[in-house]
Amino acid sequence: MSSTFGRLFRVTTYGESHGPALGCVIDGCPPGLALDLDAIAADMARRRPGQSKLVTPRREEDAVEVLSGWFEGRTTGTPLHLQIRTQDADSSKYLPWKDIWRPSHADYTYHAKYGLRDWRGGGRASARETAARVAAGAVARQLLSERWGVEIVAWVEEVGGLAAPPVDPLTITRDAVDAHPTRCPDPQTAEAMATLIQAVRVDRDSLGGVVGAVARGVPPGWGEPVFDRAEALLAMAMLSLPACKGFESGSGFAGARMRGSSHNDPFALDPATGTVRTTTNHSGGVQGGITNGMPLTLRAAFKPVATIPRDQATVDASGQPATIHMTGRHDPCVLPRAVPLVEAMMALVLADLALIQRARR
Amino acid sequence: MSSTFGRLFRVTTYGESHGPALGCVIDGCPPGLALDLDAIAADMARRRPGQSKLVTPRREEDAVEVLSGWFEGRTTGTPLHLQIRTQDADSSKYLPWKDIWRPSHADYTYHAKYGLRDWRGGGRASARETAARVAAGAVARQLLSERWGVEIVAWVEEVGGLAAPPVDPLTITRDAVDAHPTRCPDPQTAEAMATLIQAVRVDRDSLGGVVGAVARGVPPGWGEPVFDRAEALLAMAMLSLPACKGFESGSGFAGARMRGSSHNDPFALDPATGTVRTTTNHSGGVQGGITNGMPLTLRAAFKPVATIPRDQATVDASGQPATIHMTGRHDPCVLPRAVPLVEAMMALVLADLALIQRARR
Amino acid sequence: MSSTFGRLFRVTTYGESHGPALGCVIDGCPPGLALDLDAIAADMARRRPGQSKLVTPRREEDAVEVLSGWFEGRTTGTPLHLQIRTQDADSSKYLPWKDIWRPSHADYTYHAKYGLRDWRGGGRASARETAARVAAGAVARQLLSERWGVEIVAWVEEVGGLAAPPVDPLTITRDAVDAHPTRCPDPQTAEAMATLIQAVRVDRDSLGGVVGAVARGVPPGWGEPVFDRAEALLAMAMLSLPACKGFESGSGFAGARMRGSSHNDPFALDPATGTVRTTTNHSGGVQGGITNGMPLTLRAAFKPVATIPRDQATVDASGQPATIHMTGRHDPCVLPRAVPLVEAMMALVLADLALIQRARR
Amino acid sequence: MSSTFGRLFRVTTYGESHGPALGCVIDGCPPGLALDLDAIAADMARRRPGQSKLVTPRREEDAVEVLSGWFEGRTTGTPLHLQIRTQDADSSKYLPWKDIWRPSHADYTYHAKYGLRDWRGGGRASARETAARVAAGAVARQLLSERWGVEIVAWVEEVGGLAAPPVDPLTITRDAVDAHPTRCPDPQTAEAMATLIQAVRVDRDSLGGVVGAVARGVPPGWGEPVFDRAEALLAMAMLSLPACKGFESGSGFAGARMRGSSHNDPFALDPATGTVRTTTNHSGGVQGGITNGMPLTLRAAFKPVATIPRDQATVDASGQPATIHMTGRHDPCVLPRAVPLVEAMMALVLADLALIQRARR
Repeated sequence: MSSTFGRLFRVTTYGESHGPALGCVIDGCPPGLALDLDAIAADMARRRPGQSKLVTPRREEDAVEVLSGWFEGRTTGTPLHLQIRTQDADSSKYLPWKDIWRPSHADYTYHAKYGLRDWRGGGRASARETAARVAAGAVARQLLSERWGVEIVAWVEEVGGLAAPPVDPLTITRDAVDAHPTRCPDPQTAEAMATLIQAVRVDRDSLGGVVGAVARGVPPGWGEPVFDRAEALLAMAMLSLPACKGFESGSGFAGARMRGSSHNDPFALDPATGTVRTTTNHSGGVQGGITNGMPLTLRAAFKPVATIPRDQATVDASGQPATIHMTGRHDPCVLPRAVPLVEAMMALVLADLALIQRARR
Repeated sequence: MSSTFGRLFRVTTYGESHGPALGCVIDGCPPGLALDLDAIAADMARRRPGQSKLVTPRREEDAVEVLSGWFEGRTTGTPLHLQIRTQDADSSKYLPWKDIWRPSHADYTYHAKYGLRDWRGGGRASARETAARVAAGAVARQLLSERWGVEIVAWVEEVGGLAAPPVDPLTITRDAVDAHPTRCPDPQTAEAMATLIQAVRVDRDSLGGVVGAVARGVPPGWGEPVFDRAEALLAMAMLSLPACKGFESGSGFAGARMRGSSHNDPFALDPATGTVRTTTNHSGGVQGGITNGMPLTLRAAFKPVATIPRDQATVDASGQPATIHMTGRHDPCVLPRAVPLVEAMMALVLADLALIQRARR
Repeated sequence: MSSTFGRLFRVTTYGESHGPALGCVIDGCPPGLALDLDAIAADMARRRPGQSKLVTPRREEDAVEVLSGWFEGRTTGTPLHLQIRTQDADSSKYLPWKDIWRPSHADYTYHAKYGLRDWRGGGRASARETAARVAAGAVARQLLSERWGVEIVAWVEEVGGLAAPPVDPLTITRDAVDAHPTRCPDPQTAEAMATLIQAVRVDRDSLGGVVGAVARGVPPGWGEPVFDRAEALLAMAMLSLPACKGFESGSGFAGARMRGSSHNDPFALDPATGTVRTTTNHSGGVQGGITNGMPLTLRAAFKPVATIPRDQATVDASGQPATIHMTGRHDPCVLPRAVPLVEAMMALVLADLALIQRARR
Repeated sequence: MSSTFGRLFRVTTYGESHGPALGCVIDGCPPGLALDLDAIAADMARRRPGQSKLVTPRREEDAVEVLSGWFEGRTTGTPLHLQIRTQDADSSKYLPWKDIWRPSHADYTYHAKYGLRDWRGGGRASARETAARVAAGAVARQLLSERWGVEIVAWVEEVGGLAAPPVDPLTITRDAVDAHPTRCPDPQTAEAMATLIQAVRVDRDSLGGVVGAVARGVPPGWGEPVFDRAEALLAMAMLSLPACKGFESGSGFAGARMRGSSHNDPFALDPATGTVRTTTNHSGGVQGGITNGMPLTLRAAFKPVATIPRDQATVDASGQPATIHMTGRHDPCVLPRAVPLVEAMMALVLADLALIQRARR
């Protein structure tokens, strides 16, 4: 525990990297949702390794099987179980490292916490765990889209310090994001990032970066003060992702350097719709922890990948100094694959808040 | 909802800014804790407005009364209720604004969410709500200190873009932080911040900034993957604070610009204690969502205060354009008072994780 | 813990019998409910000791103060805090028993669980704790009545083996129940019960009994399979009451002796309303854990009061054999006062299920 | 929702009767438990239909596959997933009834709640759902046995009004229970029950009954007042089972007819162990909602099976009067198969309370 997320749209995930299966059980998905399995498969494909030469060549089919909660093409309101059977798991490569703590991996902390661990492929701490989140997020996304018209898009904003020019959260599309394997929507920066990633791979090193994201169409009123504020849950959602070390809502850290007079978002009436809006959006669509109808914007920072094919100093399980040299498939940069993760977690938060708010009035 | 935080050390807060009382009920505080009421009062005093000319002159006694769960000086294991009666509430100043949305306040969003709101003093959205958190956090802090020797210190790192030199998380003390009203432990930067705050006050504007924090003495093994990772809960805790817009764990956004070879934290044996440690701490004391025994480090960004005594464009409750000019007491900069809030939320997260881990083995 | 009940209509209670105050915080009460404080006071009065010579003469004002979540006569959607200050607490009578385990009280188990206990007046284990539940239940009742037209009535069905003739759940009213101090709506049985209670009091003994209850107007669709079935939550709610040892939904234990052919409830169309109903109601208004639109019926058994003014064999805190002889005010029979408790808990369950179902569609 | 049970030992079940699979995810099972898969299979076999001519001939292999949370024979502390693939599902028999509400089944209420339902084999409302609970309960039972020496035994006490002589909760064994297909440990009553069940089957009718249960070896201190009392959670657990309509803890409804002087359980010192015990056990091992070290005893009433092969009056989905005549395999009496369900739910409650109490001190 805790592998459960959400209060009314409640997702429980399970599964180890090299175990027979992983997946998610969604308890609380409203009934009658026409699940688009192709769209789920498409979301899964975006997370899957081996999409381009920029990412790890491990092949995973990640075929999603719906085992419950689904009848004649629609959700039934009972627990919806999406399962992914493991295909391509060769644990032998991990055998030499099972008693050595890989630096900045979770080997040591899992051992310290549980007293034992499934070392095959990183076990539960593997990023492969996020496949279950993407599956769950795909359902949440469809729910948000069908019932509220909410649209979520994430993109790569920065890789290894290479930052793209600001993205317009009002207009950015998934197609624009997916146009380049880096998932950076600025073509020029995308190319530079690809070049950098390849150079770092050759250098047997790794990179981190920043993902930006927006949710458009979120109505005012979502978010549960004082603790389950929209921003708080989004922050939790992002920091629950492997390798995520930072989160910003709206203006974020840059906002902390502004004056109130320029940071405050003036209210105005949208002449087109007759609804209240703000003329700027430093708040990132959330005020007092509650959505205000403006686009929700966030940024998530991911540290460089811990697995690097170099000699690294560490200790083994008995506390003796050791040198580890990891080989085998790995991503030099997770950022392109972090995009669907950010979207999935954002969808899980919003689906939950939507249902909670609907219960209220 | 949700005004409850935590799973085993579970805090529920209540209260509006100008209501008769606010407070917290802690359900799950272990029995037998010798509660130090003076230490609670000291923590409350640090949050209280009117501590210096840098912050709002509103006087609040914030006397904490223990109404339950406490007997003969010790907690009993039953719900511990800390209550603060309201003293100095003059709601009349808020009357003119009750039907105008103050920019970057929560007036509009509370109205959109609930259909009505207690406008007196900001109601539930007032930062005064955090008094209950500080009270709860003071209990959590004492529990962490007594049972696990954990020590939490936060400080002001940046105000309005003025950044202090890096603080050593291993040695920083609360005394050093409290030595200056800004709670910036670097005397020179502290003075510059004070000057800036006063200048901005004269300019009828406001400032944001960044708080840094550390928890020392946290043992390995706290944190609940995959969703309730230590970092995820800390992020949620920080972003649940009013005005918080950003969070970093360990290396944060800067880490996203590093290479894996320099970001990875090598393990080594501490010759003094015989325990595993890392020789650097870019991970901020957490790996795979679980504490590794190193100091937990985080940063939280706070936007500039929304209340500024200037003309601001907005709309009123009927959607008509309006100009608002707020007067009365307010902080030009919340940062010094954010320090105890960050500490309190950090304590709440860690107390909860400590109890959950104790249940496991 | 756990002193919190419910998921969306979430009640946290606190307070010891002789502590300065007890009360409840309701997080999740929908906004805009016009709280009738007189009705709350009336509900409190029904629980209060000293209503008649049949019950304990302890006088408690039980005045409810609303400390938060309430503005201009309406709930605001933020935590609603109802507090009751303690008036008439003389702990000295409990002093002699503080180190002796009173038989069938919770002294020993609280000590075993927490290592220490507030022995004054029974501390947290006192039935006085239920005052907070009645206050919370009064709010839930108003919500259910205003928003869904639900009406809840409980009554005394049996005292010390004296059973009243079956009550018609369709027509029974609170007035009929309150017509006699025993709260048994059958006048003849009520008199016999009163006589029995007085005789048992003289005999320095105590009685138990059975409360029946109905909720009318509950629409189909409330209840959350598979675990949070309506019956399951009602059972939990009842057994969470002090002294409750048994629960029946619909036909209960008697139903276990029937054949399917007579127990099954045939469906029919109600010609008056055009809605589906059943022609019998052995199911007690719940099928598959979900309400079916018929009256919800239940029964709750309460054991005889543990406090009796007689010599009783026990052991003291050091494990030595001891004789205890309790004196002072007490109820020889809690049944009349159990009626509002049953209603309150029933209201809490239904309010929560109503909100959860509203979130779904 | 809610298909999740428990707070620290948290079980989520999923699956429809004729769906591809059902199972449970246990989040929070402590690491290092040597899972005995044969014992799990044995528990599953006890629930399985077709064990004797007394129960339905439907054949289900109910083979449990462990998909996660388990490594080298031990639990890892991560989510433990037990899955059962469906073997023998012929939905065609249910086709004629898909638009007719079967009396005292959950067809109508599921439809009313969710707007649609999986009608194949009863869908989520099928008793087949309990297979997942038995699997989860088997894990809980092993945990309780290994870590605390707790032993749980249930038995059939009454069928169709035929009641066995009182069972001694201190000595009853699973072997004695399983000695007869009825699972009534009194041979003479067991035979009479078997005869009755066969007669009722020939009569195309069905029976209900009562299951008794005990947990031995539970230490003092388990149970979480005021709402999550041990009895409250056990009551919820039992009433969450299909067809369960009544619950008793300890003396139950009979206790409500006793006097306090005979119902109170005197404390005494057990000379053998030096621990506190009670000389009688009307409390059923729980006082004030907390276990007192005595055997936990409970009874659960089950209504007669709703499926009977007779003409029954009902309405169809359009509200028109209809006659339904169900055919095909079914149990005339679920009681023998209810025994493992009662044990499983009891184990789930106790495992959870054990972990929560361990967190406290």
